[in-house]
Amino acid sequence: MTRSLSCCVTWVETTDRMHIIRSIEEMQREANSHRAAGAVIGFVPTMGFLHEGHLDLLRLARRRSDVTVCSIFVNPTQFGEGEDLARYPRDFDRDCRLLEAVGCDIVFAPGVEEMYPEGDTTWVQVEGLTNVLEGAFRPTHFRGVTTVVAKLFHAVRPHLAAFGQKDAQQVAVIRRMTRDLRFGVEIAVAPIRREKDGLAMSSRNTYLDKDERKEALALYRSLQTAQRLFSGGERRPEFIQRVVEEEILRSGAMKLDYTAVVHPDSMQPYEGAIDGPALVAVAARIGSTRLIDNTVLGEE
Amino acid sequence: MTRSLSCCVTWVETTDRMHIIRSIEEMQREANSHRAAGAVIGFVPTMGFLHEGHLDLLRLARRRSDVTVCSIFVNPTQFGEGEDLARYPRDFDRDCRLLEAVGCDIVFAPGVEEMYPEGDTTWVQVEGLTNVLEGAFRPTHFRGVTTVVAKLFHAVRPHLAAFGQKDAQQVAVIRRMTRDLRFGVEIAVAPIRREKDGLAMSSRNTYLDKDERKEALALYRSLQTAQRLFSGGERRPEFIQRVVEEEILRSGAMKLDYTAVVHPDSMQPYEGAIDGPALVAVAARIGSTRLIDNTVLGEE
Repeated sequence: MTRSLSCCVTWVETTDRMHIIRSIEEMQREANSHRAAGAVIGFVPTMGFLHEGHLDLLRLARRRSDVTVCSIFVNPTQFGEGEDLARYPRDFDRDCRLLEAVGCDIVFAPGVEEMYPEGDTTWVQVEGLTNVLEGAFRPTHFRGVTTVVAKLFHAVRPHLAAFGQKDAQQVAVIRRMTRDLRFGVEIAVAPIRREKDGLAMSSRNTYLDKDERKEALALYRSLQTAQRLFSGGERRPEFIQRVVEEEILRSGAMKLDYTAVVHPDSMQPYEGAIDGPALVAVAARIGSTRLIDNTVLGEE
Repeated sequence: MTRSLSCCVTWVETTDRMHIIRSIEEMQREANSHRAAGAVIGFVPTMGFLHEGHLDLLRLARRRSDVTVCSIFVNPTQFGEGEDLARYPRDFDRDCRLLEAVGCDIVFAPGVEEMYPEGDTTWVQVEGLTNVLEGAFRPTHFRGVTTVVAKLFHAVRPHLAAFGQKDAQQVAVIRRMTRDLRFGVEIAVAPIRREKDGLAMSSRNTYLDKDERKEALALYRSLQTAQRLFSGGERRPEFIQRVVEEEILRSGAMKLDYTAVVHPDSMQPYEGAIDGPALVAVAARIGSTRLIDNTVLGEE
C-alpha cells in the first residue's frame, strides 16, 4: 500500500489531467459532483495490467460519456482456491501512463480493506447463468465478480459501464445483475482484441512462455474453424462443438476445460439447429495458465 | 393493478403536494434531479398498511432530509411458502392520506413486475447474521429483504433510509448490507411504537381477534420483566431468557418460536455476563398470526 501510494503521489505531480482516487467516499463525492453538474459518467472496471483490450473499453466509454473512470482492483473474491491471485500481474505506474494517454479522467484504485471491510459477509449472486461453463470450473468466481461490480457501481455511480466480449459469460452475468437489481447503469460491450496472430488479449498471456504462446493459438484456430463451418452452412451445434474440441486437442499441450455452443444471454446449450445468435466458448489450460476465448457465429 | 392505478389518478387530483411514482425509471429521474439540485433524499421503505410506527420513520426521514420518499411495495420474495403474502393487509388510499399528512413528498409504489423483471435470478445475501432468530424460522426471508432493499435503494437513490427497531434483526442485516456493498446510504433507526397497552405496532396486528389481541400482550409483559430484572442487577443472559420464555408461555394461547438475548450487531447469543448492549428478542404465534417484539436492556 505505502509503496504504491507514494508512487502515485509522484505520478500525480507529472499530470493534471488525470485524478487518482483511493477512497470510496472520495470517489462517491467526486461522482456526485459530476452528476450534479450534468456530466455523464462512463466506467471501465479492470484488474489492471492493461492491454489494448482494456484501452478499447476506455475509448468506448470515453466516446459515450463526459467523465471516464477506470478502476484498477485485483479482486480477491473472484479467484478460487489454488488460482493465480498471488501472482496476478500488476504494474500501476504503467497502467496510469496508458490510461492518461487514452484520456481517462479518474483512476479509482481502492485497497482490499476499502472494498471488503472487516466482517464483510454480503454477496450479490446471479443464479442459473453462473453454474455452467466458467462457473462450473470456477464455482465461486461469478459471485466474486457480481459482488465487486455492485460495490464498484456504488462507488463510481456511472451512467454507463463497459465490459469486454472476451469474458462473454461475465457480460451476460453483469447484464442480468444490472437489470435485475435495477442499477440504472447501461452495459456496453467492446469486441475481443486479438494479437496479430489471433490470440485473444489477456493480462494472463504474460504467464505464457514462448512454446506455450505458440500452442495457445489452437484456441483461436478452433474458433476460426467454427466460423468457417458456420459460413459453409453447418448448423448442428454438437457437430461444431466436436470439431472445435478436436482442433484444440490437436495441440497436445492444451488441456481442455470445455467447449460449448450456447445462447449468448442464457449460456444454455443450443438444442437442435442453430437459428439465432450462437456463442462458441472455449476454455483450456496450458502449463499453469488458464485461457478462455469465444466467438459469436456469423459475426467475425 | 388497474384498480389501484385508477384510484391513484383520482387521488392525485386532490393534492399537489405529494407525487406518486410507479416506474423505476421515473423514480430514478426524479431522484437524479433532486440530487443535482443539492437536495438530501430521505427514504422509508414499507409494505404499506401504515401505522404510527411507519409515520415515525417518515417524520425521522423528513427531519433529516429535503425530499422524503416512502415506498409501498408488498415484497413477495420476503414471504416464505405458507406465509401470509396473499392476505397481507393493503389500503393504498389510506396510506396516501396518512403520508400526505406527515409531509411525504413522493410515494414510490412499483408493481411486482417492475421490481422483479421476467427471468430475474439475482439475489443479495448477507451471510452469518441471517441464519439465526428470524432467519432460522424464515430461511428465505432476509434474502428477500436485502434483495428488495438493494433494488429500492437503486430506484430511490437516497442519502438516508429509515428502518424500525421493531425488526431489530432486519436493522442489523440492512446495516451490514449497506456497509458491505458500499451503498453510501446512512441507515437511521426509529424506536418501537407501541399501542397504549404496550403491544408493538405492526400491520399484522390487524389479523388478531379480540381474545388474541389480549393474549398478545404477553410479549410486551415478558420484555418488561426482562427490563425489571436487568434494572435490579441481573446480568445472566440465560436466566433472563428463561424468565422471558416462561412469561410468554404463561399465556396458553401463544406458541413460542424463540426467545433470545443477543448482541444487537451480530445477533449472536450473549455468553457470560451481560456487559454491553443486549437485545432481548422474542417471536411467537397466536392463532395464525406470527408476532415479534424486542427490547434493548437498560434502554426503555
